[in-house]
Order: sequence, then C-alpha cells, then structure tokens
Amino acid sequence: MPKEPTSEISRRQFVKQAASASVAAGSAALLAGCQDSTSGGGSTPNINTDKTFKWKMVTTWPSTLKVLGEGAKLLAGWIETMSQGRLQIKVYGAGELVPALGIFEAVSQGAAQMGHGASYYWAGSSQAAQFFAAVPFGMNAQQMNAWIYSGGGLELWEKVYKPFGLLPMPAGNTGVQMGGWFNREINSIDDFKGMKMRIPGLGGKVLAKAGGAAVLKPGGEIYTSLERGLIDATEWIGPYHDYHMGFHRVAKYYYYPGWHEPGTVLELFVNREAFEELPADLQEIVRTATYRSNMWMLSEFESKNNMYLDKLINEHDVQLRKFPDDVLAKLKVYSQETIEEICASDPLSAEVYDSFKKFQKAVNSWAEISERAYYGLT
Amino acid sequence: MPKEPTSEISRRQFVKQAASASVAAGSAALLAGCQDSTSGGGSTPNINTDKTFKWKMVTTWPSTLKVLGEGAKLLAGWIETMSQGRLQIKVYGAGELVPALGIFEAVSQGAAQMGHGASYYWAGSSQAAQFFAAVPFGMNAQQMNAWIYSGGGLELWEKVYKPFGLLPMPAGNTGVQMGGWFNREINSIDDFKGMKMRIPGLGGKVLAKAGGAAVLKPGGEIYTSLERGLIDATEWIGPYHDYHMGFHRVAKYYYYPGWHEPGTVLELFVNREAFEELPADLQEIVRTATYRSNMWMLSEFESKNNMYLDKLINEHDVQLRKFPDDVLAKLKVYSQETIEEICASDPLSAEVYDSFKKFQKAVNSWAEISERAYYGLT
Repeated sequence: MPKEPTSEISRRQFVKQAASASVAAGSAALLAGCQDSTSGGGSTPNINTDKTFKWKMVTTWPSTLKVLGEGAKLLAGWIETMSQGRLQIKVYGAGELVPALGIFEAVSQGAAQMGHGASYYWAGSSQAAQFFAAVPFGMNAQQMNAWIYSGGGLELWEKVYKPFGLLPMPAGNTGVQMGGWFNREINSIDDFKGMKMRIPGLGGKVLAKAGGAAVLKPGGEIYTSLERGLIDATEWIGPYHDYHMGFHRVAKYYYYPGWHEPGTVLELFVNREAFEELPADLQEIVRTATYRSNMWMLSEFESKNNMYLDKLINEHDVQLRKFPDDVLAKLKVYSQETIEEICASDPLSAEVYDSFKKFQKAVNSWAEISERAYYGLT
Repeated sequence: MPKEPTSEISRRQFVKQAASASVAAGSAALLAGCQDSTSGGGSTPNINTDKTFKWKMVTTWPSTLKVLGEGAKLLAGWIETMSQGRLQIKVYGAGELVPALGIFEAVSQGAAQMGHGASYYWAGSSQAAQFFAAVPFGMNAQQMNAWIYSGGGLELWEKVYKPFGLLPMPAGNTGVQMGGWFNREINSIDDFKGMKMRIPGLGGKVLAKAGGAAVLKPGGEIYTSLERGLIDATEWIGPYHDYHMGFHRVAKYYYYPGWHEPGTVLELFVNREAFEELPADLQEIVRTATYRSNMWMLSEFESKNNMYLDKLINEHDVQLRKFPDDVLAKLKVYSQETIEEICASDPLSAEVYDSFKKFQKAVNSWAEISERAYYGLT
C-alpha cells in the first residue's frame, strides 16, 4: 500500500491538538444533547435539515489513482446525489490541500471534514490504529468486515479515534495483496538481509526483524527509486494497480502471497463535531455510502486483478513466484513477535488485538469447513 | 436455503401478465423521458421530490427470521432514515400479504413495490434467474459480488428480470453454506439413491441425477418432516441459522461443504414503474442501501457461524462430516451436466452462464495466488 511522507506537524503538537479537539467534540455532543450509540457518532435530532453543507474530503491517494482515487470521488458523488445536494463534498487528492499523510491531523483539527486513507498510516499517532487496516498473517477482507461490522471491531476503532475527534468507517478493501516486486529471487529468509524494501506498517517492522530495512517512499518515487537501485524491492497492492505503476519495467520477480496485508481495510474518517452537526438523514447517508464504497472497491480489484496478472506474465515476462514455505513460517514468527512487542508497550493495542485475535481464531475454525473447503472444490 | 410452496397463479398466466407489465414499464419510462443506464433503472429528473412514498416490501422470509427477516427490516429502516421519511416501506413476512413464493409475481404486477428473496426461487418463471443466486461448484460470496458489481453480472440480471417489469439488486449473501443434515452417513454416491432430501434450485436437480428425490418444503415444515421420516435429509443455510431451526434434534450428521450453494446471493427487486417514479435521490438511496444489507448479512453469518457450530457439536453431539472426495467429484460432474442441459434448452441461460463461467475461470486463477494462498497461511 502507498505510504506518503509524514507532515511537518510534530507528534507531540498533534496529540496536544487532538486532545483539545476531543474535548471540543465532547462539548458539541453535550450541546446537541445526544449520546453516542453503539454504532458511533450519535443519533441527532432533526436539526439543520434545510442547511446545505459544503465539505472537504482529503485523501492519501492521488485523485487520478484507479480504484482508490476513483472510489473517493464516487463516494462523494453518491452522498451528494442521495442528499439532493445538501451535503456537497469536494475531494482533494494527496498534496492538493494537505500532504498525503497530513490528512488525519487536518480532519482532526477541522481543516477538512473527511479523510480517506488506511488506518496503519496513523500508527505514529496511535499504535492501535494499524490493527484496523492490515495485520500480517491476519484476516482477509471478508473476515475483517465481519469483525468490524458484526464482531465488535468498529466500536474499538471508534474508541481509538475518539481522542482525535474522529469517527472511522470502513470504506474500501484491497483484498489479499501481492507480496511485492523484487529484483532477485527469495530462496531463504537470509535473502532479506540488507534488503532495502519499501513496505509500510507492521510488515515493515517484520522485515526489519529479518535483517532488512523498511524504507518509506511516496507512490510517485517508488518507480525511480527501484530503477536507480535506491531500493531493492517494493510492495504495492496487486496486479491491477501495480500494472499501472509500471513496476514490471524495473523489477522482474513478483511474489505472492501478501502475507503482510491479507485484506487491507481502507477507511473514511469524519470529524466528529462536523458529523454531529449533520441531521440524522445525512449521517445515515454518509454511513451507508461507505458500505457501498467498501463493496465497490473490493469488487473492482477482485474482478480485474487476473486480467492484469495475465498481461504482466504474458506481455511483460514477469516471473511469478511464491515465497518458500520456510520463509513464510519465519515471517509468521517475526510477525507474532512484532505484535506482542507493540501490545506489551501499548494497552490500547493490547485491547484491540485481543479482540482481533479471538475473532480470528473463531472465524478461522469456520473458514476451515466453509471458505477453505470451498477452495478445494474449484 | 428455504423454499416455500408455489403460489396459485399458473406459469402461463404469470408470463402473460409479466409481458404486459413489461410493456407498461416501458411506457412509463418513455413518459418519464428517461433511458436505462448501464447500472439499470434509469436516471430520473428531479420529479416528485416533495412526495412521500408509502411502499410495501414482501419477502420470502418469516419476518422473525434471523439475519434474513432482520435484514429486510433494517434495509427498510435505513431507506426511511436516509429519505427523511419520504420513502416509507412496510415489510411483510412470508404469507402475510402474499405466499413466500408469490412475491416475484406480486411485485411484477405492482401489488407491492419491492421483494426480498433469492433469484433461484424464480426458475419457474425464468431458468436464467437462478444463476444470480447460487450455482453448484460455482463462485463464493466475494466472487459473486465481483461478478455482479464489476464483471457484467448485474447488467445480465437486469436483462433477465426486465420482461417481468422488475429491477434486481444484490442485497445479502449467506457465504458458503453447509451441505445439509442427514440421518445416516454418506460414504459413497450410492448413499443418495432413494434419499428424499429437501433441497432447492440446481442442487435439487443434481441430487436427482444421483438417484435421490428433491423435495420442496417450506421452512416451517422441514423439522416435522424430518422427525416423521417424510424426508431423510435437508439443507438450510449454516450453523447460526440452522441452530435456530432445531435440525440437530432430528438429524445427527451435519455435512460440509455446501457444494450446492457456495455463496448464495440474496436479492432486492423493485417494480420498475415504481422505481422510475422515484426522484433521483431516492433511487440512489435504495440502491446504496442494498450494498449495506449485502455486507451486513454476510458479516452476520460470518461472525456467528462458528459459535453456533461449537454449540451444535459440543452441546448437542452433532456429528460433523465432510463429504468424501469421490462423492464431491461425482456431484461436480452431475452439476456440470445439469447446467449444460439447462443452457441447451434456454438461450438466455446460456448467455448468462457463459458470462458466469468466464468470470469464474479468471477469478479462480487470481484466487489461486490470493485467497487460496491466504488460507494456506492461517
């Protein structure tokens, strides 16, 4: 997944601002006389029903980016149509209003009302955030959605974002990602030693345990960095998206599976104060639209990945490779260690991961006789 | 999946009525001055924006049924909230307004504006309809959604329902179902010989090829039929739902995988004339709400199946069994024959299945290195 350079605001300053934003959001809720419901963001009396809202959505994606950039614009369009133009949302691509990784702070502080990104980008603000995007050897898209929508995940995610005055909602999914692009074969775990790879989030920490160096590069710099040998490898998303990034022109080996991102959740987050000013119908419209973009994005990736994988292999001589089993086994051990270290130092991460882990165990038992058995049939 | 008794209206009479409904729907579209878009149902000028619509939704589910009955009511509620009460939908359970399997005709004829069911129930009206619900050894939930939303499936589904004056939308999914409840073990394909099993759709035709007899029973009669030995076996959905049906009290063996229904799509269909009377915002609200119910239902099943499977096994001594591989291989051959026979006699089925088959082939190639590889990791 893309990772853009961090913004200028220091973490300390940000947390301080987030704390006051939270107090302000709390006051707004009190003034509006409403309590948060379990589905978050509170019900609202029918206030402001005749008002037209002009909002800004900032995103971590360039606005022309397939699926992600497209999806953010579609989401805004559905909301505008459903609201008869009473909620108009102007979508800004990465860097157009704020830097890609500045959107969490921008929406927290009210400079924009909405942000579209992925929660592991905000691990610098809250370690617990990243569990709602992707966990190495974690859950796939269907399981993440089940956890978030029906297994208590959303309530925890709301708790994690609340100090920042933000309300999160799932709003997209990449499905199982690819493992990445390499300019040499990976035959043993030692092949990661000294490797400079562009890989974000928990996956980057796991690579470091294997002796590699996780490098952060914004999307627009990856291609050139690979070409010039500044990095040896990169991961991105999957065949459909990666094809358009052109990585096959500068790396030969394309590895699977994407052990580090088995079903990455993309998110919409909304400034809580702004959300609570919306009348109940517009709140429900925003929430419902995110289910549509969640389903739409996953369906786009799922339906187009194979065609682009074919192109990569047959038209561009890309070498498709599976990570060796013993390499995956080692990465799994390092992933577990990484997660345990984070949970040991951050109680909120421990609380979130405890829910994640229990849900994963149960849903895996069910998968054994449903999805896994299904894949044996086809 | 439940199958209810067919209504009194004969097929011939129904098709005749459907044909005139289609003409009427066409005229309404002309009068409204709108063309169908690719996403179906046409865009509409901003007419009727101040009008309050009071609609009826008829369903194939008892209104108290978990997930399905619940989901239909939630769907109506979301639409009402998003529309500020401008589109009010009263939900009728099976038999409350029309018989469970009479809803397709009722909505086609305008006696109600919406129906919630599953498209294989309407195979008697159009053989091609059943491919949008479940195909034995076909696609799972994620793949069905990708085909329908992003792979041309929805356009074909709209074509199939258009002669009936209906507009279909996916509005739920069961995920991979269980193979069913049996009172004896299945050790070879011969064990299906003479077996009376309650199983709908294409799966029932496959059972017949194996020498069994597919019996249709409404949900409320299955338990008693099994208890009295009128049937030897039944399938339903999965552990969460089946537990509440109480089948474990009258059958001992619970088989997987649900080869006959690997990701059953539940549907909302709307009377086209009624839909075209809605202003653009309400049309978008209805469409968007169905994505939410689609995601919500699948997440409910996915998150709760394991807990109820545990109860069945540990509290009720249910014997969990996998169909033997050679039995599944035979059923797969019979499934292919069944589908080929239908396509040979019905050109529209052939057109739909051609799209289905091509999509399945491509998405399976991608699954090989994504979802299937993922399940090897966990």
